[in-house]
Amino acid sequence: MSPLPPRPPSASRSLVSELLMPQHVNNLGNVFGGVVLSMVDRAAAVAAMRHAGRPAVTVSIERVDFREPVYAGELVTCSAQVNYVGRTSMEVGVRVEAENLLTGTRRHTNTCHLTFVAIDEGGVPVPVPSLDLRTAEDRKRFREAERRREVRLALEREAREGAEREDAGR
Amino acid sequence: MSPLPPRPPSASRSLVSELLMPQHVNNLGNVFGGVVLSMVDRAAAVAAMRHAGRPAVTVSIERVDFREPVYAGELVTCSAQVNYVGRTSMEVGVRVEAENLLTGTRRHTNTCHLTFVAIDEGGVPVPVPSLDLRTAEDRKRFREAERRREVRLALEREAREGAEREDAGR
Amino acid sequence: MSPLPPRPPSASRSLVSELLMPQHVNNLGNVFGGVVLSMVDRAAAVAAMRHAGRPAVTVSIERVDFREPVYAGELVTCSAQVNYVGRTSMEVGVRVEAENLLTGTRRHTNTCHLTFVAIDEGGVPVPVPSLDLRTAEDRKRFREAERRREVRLALEREAREGAEREDAGR
Amino acid sequence: MSPLPPRPPSASRSLVSELLMPQHVNNLGNVFGGVVLSMVDRAAAVAAMRHAGRPAVTVSIERVDFREPVYAGELVTCSAQVNYVGRTSMEVGVRVEAENLLTGTRRHTNTCHLTFVAIDEGGVPVPVPSLDLRTAEDRKRFREAERRREVRLALEREAREGAEREDAGR
Amino acid sequence: MSPLPPRPPSASRSLVSELLMPQHVNNLGNVFGGVVLSMVDRAAAVAAMRHAGRPAVTVSIERVDFREPVYAGELVTCSAQVNYVGRTSMEVGVRVEAENLLTGTRRHTNTCHLTFVAIDEGGVPVPVPSLDLRTAEDRKRFREAERRREVRLALEREAREGAEREDAGR
Amino acid sequence: MSPLPPRPPSASRSLVSELLMPQHVNNLGNVFGGVVLSMVDRAAAVAAMRHAGRPAVTVSIERVDFREPVYAGELVTCSAQVNYVGRTSMEVGVRVEAENLLTGTRRHTNTCHLTFVAIDEGGVPVPVPSLDLRTAEDRKRFREAERRREVRLALEREAREGAEREDAGR
Repeated sequence: MSPLPPRPPSASRSLVSELLMPQHVNNLGNVFGGVVLSMVDRAAAVAAMRHAGRPAVTVSIERVDFREPVYAGELVTCSAQVNYVGRTSMEVGVRVEAENLLTGTRRHTNTCHLTFVAIDEGGVPVPVPSLDLRTAEDRKRFREAERRREVRLALEREAREGAEREDAGR
Repeated sequence: MSPLPPRPPSASRSLVSELLMPQHVNNLGNVFGGVVLSMVDRAAAVAAMRHAGRPAVTVSIERVDFREPVYAGELVTCSAQVNYVGRTSMEVGVRVEAENLLTGTRRHTNTCHLTFVAIDEGGVPVPVPSLDLRTAEDRKRFREAERRREVRLALEREAREGAEREDAGR
Repeated sequence: MSPLPPRPPSASRSLVSELLMPQHVNNLGNVFGGVVLSMVDRAAAVAAMRHAGRPAVTVSIERVDFREPVYAGELVTCSAQVNYVGRTSMEVGVRVEAENLLTGTRRHTNTCHLTFVAIDEGGVPVPVPSLDLRTAEDRKRFREAERRREVRLALEREAREGAEREDAGR
Repeated sequence: MSPLPPRPPSASRSLVSELLMPQHVNNLGNVFGGVVLSMVDRAAAVAAMRHAGRPAVTVSIERVDFREPVYAGELVTCSAQVNYVGRTSMEVGVRVEAENLLTGTRRHTNTCHLTFVAIDEGGVPVPVPSLDLRTAEDRKRFREAERRREVRLALEREAREGAEREDAGR
Repeated sequence: MSPLPPRPPSASRSLVSELLMPQHVNNLGNVFGGVVLSMVDRAAAVAAMRHAGRPAVTVSIERVDFREPVYAGELVTCSAQVNYVGRTSMEVGVRVEAENLLTGTRRHTNTCHLTFVAIDEGGVPVPVPSLDLRTAEDRKRFREAERRREVRLALEREAREGAEREDAGR
Repeated sequence: MSPLPPRPPSASRSLVSELLMPQHVNNLGNVFGGVVLSMVDRAAAVAAMRHAGRPAVTVSIERVDFREPVYAGELVTCSAQVNYVGRTSMEVGVRVEAENLLTGTRRHTNTCHLTFVAIDEGGVPVPVPSLDLRTAEDRKRFREAERRREVRLALEREAREGAEREDAGR
């Protein structure tokens, strides 16, 4: 698809970690969801730019579940990797973990999926290298991303049709 | 459902706006997706706390599409409102607009839906006032939020079953 | 005065609001005056740029009274509007309110008046649209701004003469 | 007035200086007025706390004139000193200078006057040491602050009466 | 030495990485040395706290050489690991690398050595686990840290004696 | 050495001071070492640029000892001065003091020595003015910087030889 040599998902692996501070929390000591989302986006952008060798911009982020609160004083680590690529777009998976450094307890708090597109200096999308799927895990993640893409396209179709029915029913 | 008096969605309306600065952009002048998500979460948190009269924490954010880039120098405005409430949870809709102050052009860049839960001092979820749906628009948004909720529950069920089938197939 | 079509004050209305966090307060929990002034300046700059359709820089800020303390956890909202325009300058009024989101109590903490001047790429002042005063409130605010301007010019004259008398008396 | 030993104005002298960065400027390279006001407030707060030996909060800031623009890359220095004290309040003068480090040129950009009040742990105003005026300059600044105070009280009286006349005339 | 079970250096390994932005650079596009030192300290603090299972504070940082400039847009990664422990102190080594994400070029820009001490709630130093040196690399780093410690103690002795000679010679 | 007129060390004197806030501290109320290092670097950069009349970048920082903790609410002041110059490099000394504004107690917490090099627009080192040593203190500091330089060169030589011996011994 692209004349660029394919690259394995592992070549894009990126880590962003931050010790959460009083300035990141509300008055009950919980970390704001937006603080975590902002870290997730930064980790994913690094993975996407590493894969593409190009600047990349966020196109979408799939639903994120904040399963459990994160507290000030914890270390939050976002590990990102490109799991799926289209012609100019890349789906990046980000695993978020919160670690209490004093007890060593590490909790998996969420997994996020973001789509980026590589762009040139004028902001126009450009082709990205395809993925060289080497391991069973690589293939499993690729298939899951494909399925998410199909579900999304189906939902979008349905939403469009629902909107039309609703319009028609007025 | 809750002994608290119901409140109309309009009572929770909140605005957060920010003039985007060089520190919010990448080297091509595009604003990072994470910067926008962080503003969206802050606007939504204000709407949720205003409705509940309680601290509230982010539970989830639905898929967000970054339809078009936002640039440094633009004013980004996030308008949030509670559209749906469960017993302890609230779905907040956030409309994001980017405005070029020099030309007056205002673009609708995305709409996000976040779920918050109200908590007490110990972090335990507490009931929130129900919604007093007054206008046709209020009812339309409530129905749409309900539909999103049903689709989500269906997808989660499907994902669980898919995972079980995959496990079984190994 | 300017060939640009006049615009009503309401067209410049701007809101900047922020949930105040531990990082904005001193060790007694009071928000720093400078934090509020910085928000006031941002809200006023947006109103001035919206009216002028041009970059604008702060020329002066009238005396500000911090009537009552603002606390961490409160939502501070600055609402700005252009109330008076000269040839290249605009007087912007900013109303500051602090809201306790848990009780819903909203206090008017101050009103500030700032003057901005519109500039071109070289930093040279350029004419701005005149104001289309439509309501009684518009006209009242315009008159008050005129009066502030006269008092200021009188005080400046007096200060210059006082300084001259003091010099003469040495 | 206060049982605390008087202190000379020079004992409160404080300096805050900062090299202005891309993040402090608008898209034309001018530093925001609010950034300067925030530094002025911090320098003044240090002078007030040093004089009082107590936490102190901003009560008011007199009209500030931004005589000339400040640019990114310049060093802004705010020198503050307590010039006048009442029973619980202190007037602090702040001189702002912008320095181009490459040419060594230093410009006086504004002078600001802020009033602070010393408070105890409960936020209640507490007496501050009186001023030991030692030099002719100390006495000149004290007199000027007194005059500002008188002009302000006169203007406030006039504003109240004007508001009453306007009410009566409706 | 300590009743706590010994831990291998690898158990403390920590990564902090950040995409450097316009706000981190001077007007020539070079990243400030202080920005890098601040990241180095954060990465080292995480390694120290992970080893000790305790809060830890920075006691010293050895001489740092900024061999080559780091530019905005590069990804800076600090990898930290505890290399040596005393009774309550830990020496942490931090390797700093700058990566140009577009070319994939990765440069080793410096290596830093910091000493931390673990403290209890009252700020009093507390014993830390000893190191379980498993690999040849572990032992090499331990020996190098010991040597740095000896050189430092020798230099401090010499400095003290030099100061005494200088005092005597006055 | 340089055709530029020599300048006294006092002409480069610079002060950076900051009131430390909750966002600068860990959960025990201690200020992070990296926060202090970042301030030290900014104060030293100002002194170096003032001496050189040129942009300057950090080349190295000598070992820093954090003798005693600094707490939130304290005023940290970094006073910097160029003490020694080579052809294109400058050694800057920075004295760090922490002041409790409420008690007036001022502690000397550390002294740091940093080396900067002046650069032109292309990042190439350029000659700097020599130092006009006027006072006994000026000459003492110059000698001490020279000694640090000699010790450093000796240590680097020794480290190189040690590494070679170790290599040979393998």
